Amino acid sequence: GAAARKLQAAVASGGGENSASREAFRVSCVNTLERRLFYIPSFKIYRGVAGLYDYGPPGCAVKANVLAYWRQHFVLEEGMLEVDCPCVTPEVVLKASGHVDKFTDLMVKDEKTGTCYRADHLLKDFCKDKLEKDLTLPQEKVAELKHVVAVLDDLSPDELGAKIKEYGITAPDTKNSLSDPYPFNLMFQTSIGPSGLLPGYMRPETAQGIFVNFKDLYYYNGNRLPFAAAQIGQAFRNEISPRQGLLRVREFTLAEIEHFVDPDDKAHPKFADVATLEIWMFPREEQLSGKSAKKIVLGEAVPKGTVNNETLGYFIGRVYLFLTHLGIDKDRLRFRQHLPNEMAHYAADCWDAEIECSYGWIECVGIADRSAYDLKAHSEKSGVPLVAHEKFTEPREVEELVITPSKKDLGIAFKNNQQMVSQALQAMKAAEALDMKAALESKGEVEFNVCTLGKAVAIKKNMVSISMVRKKEHQRVFTPSVIEPSFGIGRIIYCLFEHCFYTRPSKDGDEQLNVFCFPPIVAPIKCTVLPLIKSEEFDGVAKLISKLLRAAGISHIIDITGTSIGKRYARTDEIGVPFAITVDSTTTVTIRERDSKNQIRVSVNEVASVIKEIIDGLSTWSNVMLKYPSHE
Amino acid sequence: GAAARKLQAAVASGGGENSASREAFRVSCVNTLERRLFYIPSFKIYRGVAGLYDYGPPGCAVKANVLAYWRQHFVLEEGMLEVDCPCVTPEVVLKASGHVDKFTDLMVKDEKTGTCYRADHLLKDFCKDKLEKDLTLPQEKVAELKHVVAVLDDLSPDELGAKIKEYGITAPDTKNSLSDPYPFNLMFQTSIGPSGLLPGYMRPETAQGIFVNFKDLYYYNGNRLPFAAAQIGQAFRNEISPRQGLLRVREFTLAEIEHFVDPDDKAHPKFADVATLEIWMFPREEQLSGKSAKKIVLGEAVPKGTVNNETLGYFIGRVYLFLTHLGIDKDRLRFRQHLPNEMAHYAADCWDAEIECSYGWIECVGIADRSAYDLKAHSEKSGVPLVAHEKFTEPREVEELVITPSKKDLGIAFKNNQQMVSQALQAMKAAEALDMKAALESKGEVEFNVCTLGKAVAIKKNMVSISMVRKKEHQRVFTPSVIEPSFGIGRIIYCLFEHCFYTRPSKDGDEQLNVFCFPPIVAPIKCTVLPLIKSEEFDGVAKLISKLLRAAGISHIIDITGTSIGKRYARTDEIGVPFAITVDSTTTVTIRERDSKNQIRVSVNEVASVIKEIIDGLSTWSNVMLKYPSHE
Repeated sequence: GAAARKLQAAVASGGGENSASREAFRVSCVNTLERRLFYIPSFKIYRGVAGLYDYGPPGCAVKANVLAYWRQHFVLEEGMLEVDCPCVTPEVVLKASGHVDKFTDLMVKDEKTGTCYRADHLLKDFCKDKLEKDLTLPQEKVAELKHVVAVLDDLSPDELGAKIKEYGITAPDTKNSLSDPYPFNLMFQTSIGPSGLLPGYMRPETAQGIFVNFKDLYYYNGNRLPFAAAQIGQAFRNEISPRQGLLRVREFTLAEIEHFVDPDDKAHPKFADVATLEIWMFPREEQLSGKSAKKIVLGEAVPKGTVNNETLGYFIGRVYLFLTHLGIDKDRLRFRQHLPNEMAHYAADCWDAEIECSYGWIECVGIADRSAYDLKAHSEKSGVPLVAHEKFTEPREVEELVITPSKKDLGIAFKNNQQMVSQALQAMKAAEALDMKAALESKGEVEFNVCTLGKAVAIKKNMVSISMVRKKEHQRVFTPSVIEPSFGIGRIIYCLFEHCFYTRPSKDGDEQLNVFCFPPIVAPIKCTVLPLIKSEEFDGVAKLISKLLRAAGISHIIDITGTSIGKRYARTDEIGVPFAITVDSTTTVTIRERDSKNQIRVSVNEVASVIKEIIDGLSTWSNVMLKYPSHE
Repeated sequence: GAAARKLQAAVASGGGENSASREAFRVSCVNTLERRLFYIPSFKIYRGVAGLYDYGPPGCAVKANVLAYWRQHFVLEEGMLEVDCPCVTPEVVLKASGHVDKFTDLMVKDEKTGTCYRADHLLKDFCKDKLEKDLTLPQEKVAELKHVVAVLDDLSPDELGAKIKEYGITAPDTKNSLSDPYPFNLMFQTSIGPSGLLPGYMRPETAQGIFVNFKDLYYYNGNRLPFAAAQIGQAFRNEISPRQGLLRVREFTLAEIEHFVDPDDKAHPKFADVATLEIWMFPREEQLSGKSAKKIVLGEAVPKGTVNNETLGYFIGRVYLFLTHLGIDKDRLRFRQHLPNEMAHYAADCWDAEIECSYGWIECVGIADRSAYDLKAHSEKSGVPLVAHEKFTEPREVEELVITPSKKDLGIAFKNNQQMVSQALQAMKAAEALDMKAALESKGEVEFNVCTLGKAVAIKKNMVSISMVRKKEHQRVFTPSVIEPSFGIGRIIYCLFEHCFYTRPSKDGDEQLNVFCFPPIVAPIKCTVLPLIKSEEFDGVAKLISKLLRAAGISHIIDITGTSIGKRYARTDEIGVPFAITVDSTTTVTIRERDSKNQIRVSVNEVASVIKEIIDGLSTWSNVMLKYPSHE
């Protein structure tokens, strides 16, 4: 751990200054990942498809371990309701959620070749390049370019197009001129069934599958709030031009939680469990005033109003514990609050867990208070109320506004327009109606705008009766708010790879050896069994140990190739195997820890249980070191 | 277990005779599954989409348990290389595999409404209906209809269309006439990237992702055979008219193994481990001669030639162990060999694990020896050789055919056509070339068909030299065979639901209670904690036990509702929770086993470890019963 951090700090610290050394670090890490099949560009023998990657055997094992721990840490520990919905989704669902209309990126086309680019990427690249390379830029130009980069996400298609024209930006590959920007929907479209009449999409997130099931899940939970539902699954985004390797891909695994809560009570009973955590946070104010992230004690962030509510704060703490337990460096992890322009209009508050890697700070988990937006949208579109009920222990008296238009008098006054005036009167908000009531009582007549008629009409006292009626209510019916932590599993895994990667000189110092210092819980394989020398006796012992490890459910490999022991250690260090069992006698063997390279001597019968204790978290290497004789 | 089997035997045994009671059993089971959210028709609030289902909380947990055990039983135990490839697949890959051209069903359309039906389903339904209901049918008509059902899969589009016309079959819903049958490709099509120029599909199976990675995986395995790669993931089939609930769906989870092996040596070192298993098998001969499945000792099936080779036999045994360990009734599981007309032309042998449920015998796992077909297809299409090498310990002498056309003489004779003739000569197979050599030697001239010219030409002795050359080879290069066990996880789970479902009378005998007798390994929740009566003291003990269970990683729920203990037991029996811990004192508690309803008394400190021992398979309920006092 410490060694890796030191090396990475040297390599990756600071901003663009040492981008060359960050680049070198990445090349060395990615080469190791690809050579050892942690991941593979998909369909490589057909020259691949941009933005699609396979996990090879060690990568796939890391992914399975990360997801198993996610289930343990969130679903099991918090008693969440896990569901599993299909990727193929009919259009109506994504129309309701807003994805059909708004899940777009702005695209420009090379006017001659038809090659497509993301408009904002081209503009950003142009500005950054100019700022970096053109040292003669006047001060006001520097300010202008910096401003463009800052407001990039807020620019309309027309504004983006105007800037691209103004700066003379052309297609990067051909220098041809570019089309105007136009929106491209990022969902993969398909058609469900043979008729061709039912359009569908590959889901862009797993959350919608949970929202449409809210009614059943609420019932399953005994009609009680709060509760959380969770889902792990594939999601799809047909990126215009994928880049940054595993970080921006066209298909990825999401793990999402939808925590449903009474909007009037977002306290969390277990908030105290995370209140003492001290975490790097980057609140809105710090960002807007050009300051940097700062360490904040979570328990102080909620009462101070930095974080909107306890439930949001609780999840920030749980996400922090999850990521650091996996092996993410706590000092290269920060929680950044969304700026007002980044947040959807309905969102109450939003924090991203960002992890620093060689590409900069990467958003890996989004934690958003989405208020009641999604449930309301699906209620409206489907006609099925997605609401919760709070039964009162005793009925409560409430005042209700009742507006009763007089059909007869409206008919006489407005003839054919009667109904539209009547509807407009009934649609008045409470405040407006009470104003009208007061005005009618004092003046007897009032001017009233009927938008469906496109004009104002004169309403007289006899035409409508407005009153407050007292009645008894037995329950409150409301749409729950949802707090959504959403995990990009592939991004977390890539950042984990970088945080765990380091190099160290070989014994004779003539080469640099690669190591992944994965914690045992993440390591793709928990131990290697190596006979010290080629011998039938030692091979027999190795096979016996393998059998004991298998019975204990510990993933392992036997390496009985004739290669030198040093080379064989290096080979397993490179895929992050934490322990190596070396068979050098028939009664006792040694266990070597990957990072310290310390070795202890343990009897053949005990070796599986010693390893199991450590990987199950019941013991640590340091404890075990005290208990067994060390081996030099 | 026993009770469930007895009930199901009564309900589901035999053929169509008691289809009413099978239907009743299914309704009762499916109602329980849907009411307790084991699964949910997807997008229900929008009136759903045929063939798409969600797993709700208990179903999702069962699925996770089945997949975890699959990983344990196959990937970990056999040291397989697990990979994880995307669902989105470019056309070229599925063109090579044959799916673009051949993955079709024949469809007919209602000529007025455009509604689509599967042609074979309509014909089959018509025949079965006629056979069941029309008791006046003459003997030869009965024979004809039975024959049509038997050869259904072999009928060409024209033959199917002719039968539909002959029998006057119309659209089931409207009685309108039907179009001629035409092929409909079952893949969901989409487009990759913004250009619209790169067609893609949602994969219909996970296997292709493994085949295209063969070269890297072979290298990862140290260039050694045999080895197996495995993948768990979503697959998609755009069914024309999905039916049979969870059994025929448009999106499903597959778990596939591709075991690569030398075609000259399909022995399996661990075959002895499964040789003594006695399994219901249904070989080709028994099917063709109208006999039924029979119990066969696996160790005898391979030497007798019933099963083609040891590796295939080994997987049949491992699949049998997997399914029965999950809770599939071994007497309602059979391995049926494919008939020659079911098997692809390249397949060497193929066995389906079929499970009997209320719908009949359902194919849940296919185990096929696909020979070298897939690797060869991708080698050819991609130009990348997907081969293995066998290094000889010492070089071997081999004879090789060498064909050397004489450029000069061919040029004189054929001018511009020279090159095509020359290529055709070099493309000759060994036998053809040796025939030509003999003919040229005896007659001096021979007629030779050049298909690129569309005619035969006269080849003379001076135009080509054909000889056998002896040379030394240091290795054998060959395309491995692949043996593929492919698991339909959703189908296995549905059959498991049926095999585990039974009903029993309530204590006062006034209603039937539903129970799922899931083995602990499959059970969605391992135990419930129930305070006997509402009391702060007992609630405290329940919370303590919950904490101990959580620490031991045991999924559980606390039920502190005021309902009677009997009702609370019934509630957890219905989702298959194997153990209930009832808190009736502050020092000791009882554990109740779901199926026997036996109870034992255990101290609060011990209860978590007792449960853990059983669910980890280290102890059994009967063992535990001997150790602790029983509670009446």
